[in-house]
Amino acid sequence: MELTHIEHIGIAVKDLDKAIGYYEKVLGVSCYAIEEVKDQKVRTAFFKVGQTKIELLESMDPEGPVGKFITKKGEGLHHLAFAVKGIEQALTEAEDKGVRLIDHKPRKGAEGLDIAFLHPKSTFGVLTEFCELKTLKKE
Amino acid sequence: MELTHIEHIGIAVKDLDKAIGYYEKVLGVSCYAIEEVKDQKVRTAFFKVGQTKIELLESMDPEGPVGKFITKKGEGLHHLAFAVKGIEQALTEAEDKGVRLIDHKPRKGAEGLDIAFLHPKSTFGVLTEFCELKTLKKE
Repeated sequence: MELTHIEHIGIAVKDLDKAIGYYEKVLGVSCYAIEEVKDQKVRTAFFKVGQTKIELLESMDPEGPVGKFITKKGEGLHHLAFAVKGIEQALTEAEDKGVRLIDHKPRKGAEGLDIAFLHPKSTFGVLTEFCELKTLKKE
Repeated sequence: MELTHIEHIGIAVKDLDKAIGYYEKVLGVSCYAIEEVKDQKVRTAFFKVGQTKIELLESMDPEGPVGKFITKKGEGLHHLAFAVKGIEQALTEAEDKGVRLIDHKPRKGAEGLDIAFLHPKSTFGVLTEFCELKTLKKE
């Protein structure tokens, strides 16, 4: 498979607005979008540092995936997302090599990306995401 | 301060050789260096994905910082390192804005970088590192 860059780093936070303040006022990076991802039960804020986005994730439900993560491990680094060429083939290849997949097929994530997660039990503890931005075909 | 890109992502692993196998054989990224950082009591392996390095960290001592992290939280994402222009000024600025510093002055880290850590209690749970590669002045 071909990973081109780190697409984003997901960070779980308890209070999105306070965390945005830190990233903007201390680190000097600008939040360019806030988006609600209902099926993940999170509110997200996006920043860009070089090629890579930082995606802050605030849980809207303590029983959602990010809420459970914070209860168990506290705030902090949550997942690592690689930009990949050919997401379907990358998933097939990973599974063929023994990796447990969370998503067997890509689904739509934030910012219109096709995304899929690999299970951290197979990836040395790192919740790992593949992302691909597919350009729309003209009819 | 000016952050130019994500310099690296640190990942704590229990078994460096097994983890290298996963990154190389499944994700298809090549390990280009293995380095021992004695003062941090770790063995590290480096990969590059786009602008950003992945730094796998295996503890050589359960009482070292990475050993303690794994005992408490398990394997996984450990720290986030930004490339910054003017590391001394960036540290001063962060401290002036209320951030607790682990390193008040830069010290030498892996690959000859000047590095300094910010305390995760001040950075919404993310152990955060600033890095700067200073070119040698000719005498």
